[in-house]
Amino acid sequence: MRLPVDLKKAYRLLNHGPTVLVSSAHGEQRNVMAAAWSMPLDFDPPKVTVVIDKSTLTRELVDASGEFVLNIPARRLAAETVAVGSHSGRDGDKFAELNLATFPAEKVAAPLLDGCVGWLECKVIPEPHNQQTYDLYIAEVVAAWADPADFSEGHWHFAEGRDRSIHYVAGGTFFETGNEFKV
Amino acid sequence: MRLPVDLKKAYRLLNHGPTVLVSSAHGEQRNVMAAAWSMPLDFDPPKVTVVIDKSTLTRELVDASGEFVLNIPARRLAAETVAVGSHSGRDGDKFAELNLATFPAEKVAAPLLDGCVGWLECKVIPEPHNQQTYDLYIAEVVAAWADPADFSEGHWHFAEGRDRSIHYVAGGTFFETGNEFKV
Repeated sequence: MRLPVDLKKAYRLLNHGPTVLVSSAHGEQRNVMAAAWSMPLDFDPPKVTVVIDKSTLTRELVDASGEFVLNIPARRLAAETVAVGSHSGRDGDKFAELNLATFPAEKVAAPLLDGCVGWLECKVIPEPHNQQTYDLYIAEVVAAWADPADFSEGHWHFAEGRDRSIHYVAGGTFFETGNEFKV
Repeated sequence: MRLPVDLKKAYRLLNHGPTVLVSSAHGEQRNVMAAAWSMPLDFDPPKVTVVIDKSTLTRELVDASGEFVLNIPARRLAAETVAVGSHSGRDGDKFAELNLATFPAEKVAAPLLDGCVGWLECKVIPEPHNQQTYDLYIAEVVAAWADPADFSEGHWHFAEGRDRSIHYVAGGTFFETGNEFKV
């Protein structure tokens, strides 16, 4: 289940620093990889940054299409998050290999990954120096979605027993998003 | 308490996306502000990105000194994290106002903030276009530290009852770093 997120609130999907899955597509090819290095860059219009290594098929597809999706996986996708971060899409379609269901995005060709809690459809703002020197991509968020069971009206509200977003550390180790508190 | 962190493992302090406090100093002036928009950019030598708004005193001090520290606050500093994110250092010294203790960094003039779980001493890699267009700063991590009760030998190990790192959402709402799991 997914509902649109007001673009002005889209940064809140990423503000707590979850690990994301970057999906991409160009022509007949599609791919998905994991990225712990992603952050919001602006509120309105919303922008994001993400690091995409030169060696990856994702890099090729993002450069060719100028588009990608940041999918925010829930804990149920943790094993797949590690798997898509350690296999290359050049060795075969990871969606098929890992049995990952997708559905179409609204404004970009890259697919949205089923089982996530939020999705940000992004168009690259070309910055060749950043891309070449730092593998750093800047993009504008052109559509955003969330599973209304977990995020609605601009707020996260993970219920007891619901799988939360995840935060990769290293070596297959994650933190789950913890308890909410206010000050 | 703090011990040095091997620079090659410094990215692990930030990899799970905690909110940071950016401390800065130049001449007689010093300041601290909150930043949810920060991420690792490279492993070795370690680099980071952080967004620093043009309106802030921090921006002025970072531009003048070419240095800053990313302090990773524990939950005990959540109220201070909101306070330093909503007051300007131009209205008075926030360290004094909020009773924030500091200790000297090793390689930069900006102070390290007491009560944090990790610290990254950073030197700006000048990228005027990013700074001007996106308020985006890229920096090399030149020294890193952690409280060995929470992070040692490259690993987080928050014990029961210890205050963890925090992840800001909006409007005074945070998530605490949750439980660790492996896949």
